[in-house]
Amino acid sequence: MTASVPVVEPDITKLLDHLSRQPALADRLGGTRDLWSAREIGDGNVNHVFVVRGPAGAVCVKHAPPYVRAAGPSWFLTPRRILFEHRALVEHRRHAGPHVPEPLHVDPEEHLLTVEYLAGHSVLRGGLAAGASYPHFAEQAAHYLAHTLFFTSDLALPAGRKRELTSLFETNTAMCQIMEDMVFTEIFLPHRRNRWTSPELDEDVRRLQRDTDLKLAVCRLKQRYLTSRDALLHGDLHTGSIMISDHSLSVIDQEFACYGPMGFDVGTLLAHLLIAYFAAGARGPDQAAQQDWLLSAVEEVWDGFRTRFTELWRDQADGDGYPAALFTGAATAALEAERQRYMGALFTDSLGFCGAEIIRRIVGFARPADFTTITDSAKRAAAERRALTLARALTTTPTDYHSVTDLTAAARDSY
Amino acid sequence: MTASVPVVEPDITKLLDHLSRQPALADRLGGTRDLWSAREIGDGNVNHVFVVRGPAGAVCVKHAPPYVRAAGPSWFLTPRRILFEHRALVEHRRHAGPHVPEPLHVDPEEHLLTVEYLAGHSVLRGGLAAGASYPHFAEQAAHYLAHTLFFTSDLALPAGRKRELTSLFETNTAMCQIMEDMVFTEIFLPHRRNRWTSPELDEDVRRLQRDTDLKLAVCRLKQRYLTSRDALLHGDLHTGSIMISDHSLSVIDQEFACYGPMGFDVGTLLAHLLIAYFAAGARGPDQAAQQDWLLSAVEEVWDGFRTRFTELWRDQADGDGYPAALFTGAATAALEAERQRYMGALFTDSLGFCGAEIIRRIVGFARPADFTTITDSAKRAAAERRALTLARALTTTPTDYHSVTDLTAAARDSY
Repeated sequence: MTASVPVVEPDITKLLDHLSRQPALADRLGGTRDLWSAREIGDGNVNHVFVVRGPAGAVCVKHAPPYVRAAGPSWFLTPRRILFEHRALVEHRRHAGPHVPEPLHVDPEEHLLTVEYLAGHSVLRGGLAAGASYPHFAEQAAHYLAHTLFFTSDLALPAGRKRELTSLFETNTAMCQIMEDMVFTEIFLPHRRNRWTSPELDEDVRRLQRDTDLKLAVCRLKQRYLTSRDALLHGDLHTGSIMISDHSLSVIDQEFACYGPMGFDVGTLLAHLLIAYFAAGARGPDQAAQQDWLLSAVEEVWDGFRTRFTELWRDQADGDGYPAALFTGAATAALEAERQRYMGALFTDSLGFCGAEIIRRIVGFARPADFTTITDSAKRAAAERRALTLARALTTTPTDYHSVTDLTAAARDSY
Repeated sequence: MTASVPVVEPDITKLLDHLSRQPALADRLGGTRDLWSAREIGDGNVNHVFVVRGPAGAVCVKHAPPYVRAAGPSWFLTPRRILFEHRALVEHRRHAGPHVPEPLHVDPEEHLLTVEYLAGHSVLRGGLAAGASYPHFAEQAAHYLAHTLFFTSDLALPAGRKRELTSLFETNTAMCQIMEDMVFTEIFLPHRRNRWTSPELDEDVRRLQRDTDLKLAVCRLKQRYLTSRDALLHGDLHTGSIMISDHSLSVIDQEFACYGPMGFDVGTLLAHLLIAYFAAGARGPDQAAQQDWLLSAVEEVWDGFRTRFTELWRDQADGDGYPAALFTGAATAALEAERQRYMGALFTDSLGFCGAEIIRRIVGFARPADFTTITDSAKRAAAERRALTLARALTTTPTDYHSVTDLTAAARDSY
């Protein structure tokens, strides 16, 4: 591997210079520049992230180097991704304000994005790995999903505005390509980036790569990712993209934002709850309560999302899709039935994407800490195999699951 | 109705000035400017069209006034539509060269587009109304559809290039809105633009506007038009957009071009062949041979399209959709079965759009000459009612038609 660009070392001095040039940011930190301190906190795969503190407050600054941080300079990645993250923050915050951090400033030359610092929050994935559960998580996540997806869809927006937004995000091609390659393609081929628990899962992976029904199902899902422009997606909604406290939930890392199929965001989140569920099982029987909570969270996220989304559709459908004027009087019942049909199709889609996401997180490049922190490889492999089995069923036969309790029952039946 | 912009009278002097400033265009016309003559030939709803002749040759010049030509200045329409037409000509000519006229020049300030003059061609709709049939039409139309749709899809293009193209066309919002309103919405409401054969069809229209199943089916199709980005569509592929001679077929008037569902183009073309079929029936029994030819054209357009499209998919699938590397050895048969499934779903989609297009051409603003030139209103209404009945069935129960011969049999059974 040859480095095409140099490693960009985080430069604290330049960072503080940058903040001091923006009066609003300097005010927020307070005091003078020599009283500010910066510390790198990012553990993501893609960017550097710093918290900068001053006497009056703190901000979070992201820097996008021209490569994938976890891979280094040999894997070029346009730093313009930070602009799409900023745009998505602005758009999603309009609709799901309590669950999207405030974007404060973006510098398109230096590829620096400054956002509100989320005091008292920690990364959901880390909390789950430590055995925690969060009473408000499901309700908040459902609200976030319903509001971001509904209000950027043709159900809420006039077609012209929605086409304009689609156009803005359509050129986030480099980030979409990562998903197109890593979620839907590479794991089914011998590829240098693939990793799995070896040798325990070698045979499982060989079987998976020869599984024609699964590959066809995943290709159909890829086709939906490539061609559907339903709503502005987060695009990478795993538990590492969610910051959580006892009372608040905030979604970060929008650099994969694009218009795509709604089921992609819903399915990704469900996938990572199920990954946490299977990982908890491997950490021992004392995790049974957390496992129960995780499955109830799966149910409540979907039910809460479906309920809130259909409420919004009934009450705030100002878009060009399904004009309410066409369904007055007795026809309102038919429109309501259509809403239920739509949500059923979206559930099926979500299960397919959920399965594909679980699989690529076990066989691909970006394996989640839930699994990789299980040091006993036999236990890890057993958990991963259970997850793979459920995931394959979700992706190849999603219509076998008529409701979310069918899904959680299947997860329970894995043991 | 108040005029928000003045009527733009076609100004021949300005037109010739424009051509004389472009050396390549002046060369093509030949001689000196005083030897050139311009004549308006356009009969479209949207733009002015001129043929300009000189000693050496001729060109065709389109001018987009800032309104819908057929409606006048009270209906504003951005003249920037001419830029999308130019882009679509460039892109489609790359893939279906013999059936797309050569774009020669576009002037984004004056909203003038100069294209190759199609000597010896006439508008297909006019020829059909005069009772003509065209032995090469179906094969050529199928080739045009297969090549323009396949080569602009994710089956042929790398995702990055396809997203870039999608972005370019996504802002053709004003033209898309015309379709969103006129094809899928207005005809189901009391709307000032709606026209139909009255009083003969009054009761049919009342019934149609209360037909909840039909309205739901059309809303689902509208949702596909709003959210699917399958391929770069012509966007208005009726028989008035096709220039034809004994040996050649050329598709014009790409100003509605956008990324959308492939079935929209396929279905629109089938709709207008069926409209011609029902109109021919109203002109009398001596049109039976043309009616037979029109139904064989419906069959051959679909069969030719399906055959050519799947051939291209087998041989030239360089896109990110369904990567061939995933389906080697015994799995190639599964991929071939998936191609057939895909074409089946596309057929169902096409039938739905076909029905919606027929309906809006009988009840809406843009009624085709096929019907409006039938002066006997009772005969016209009878033909339109037959078309409406078939169209409703296509749109509400498209999966009842397993093959294109089911469609043509249903058209025959209308009598």
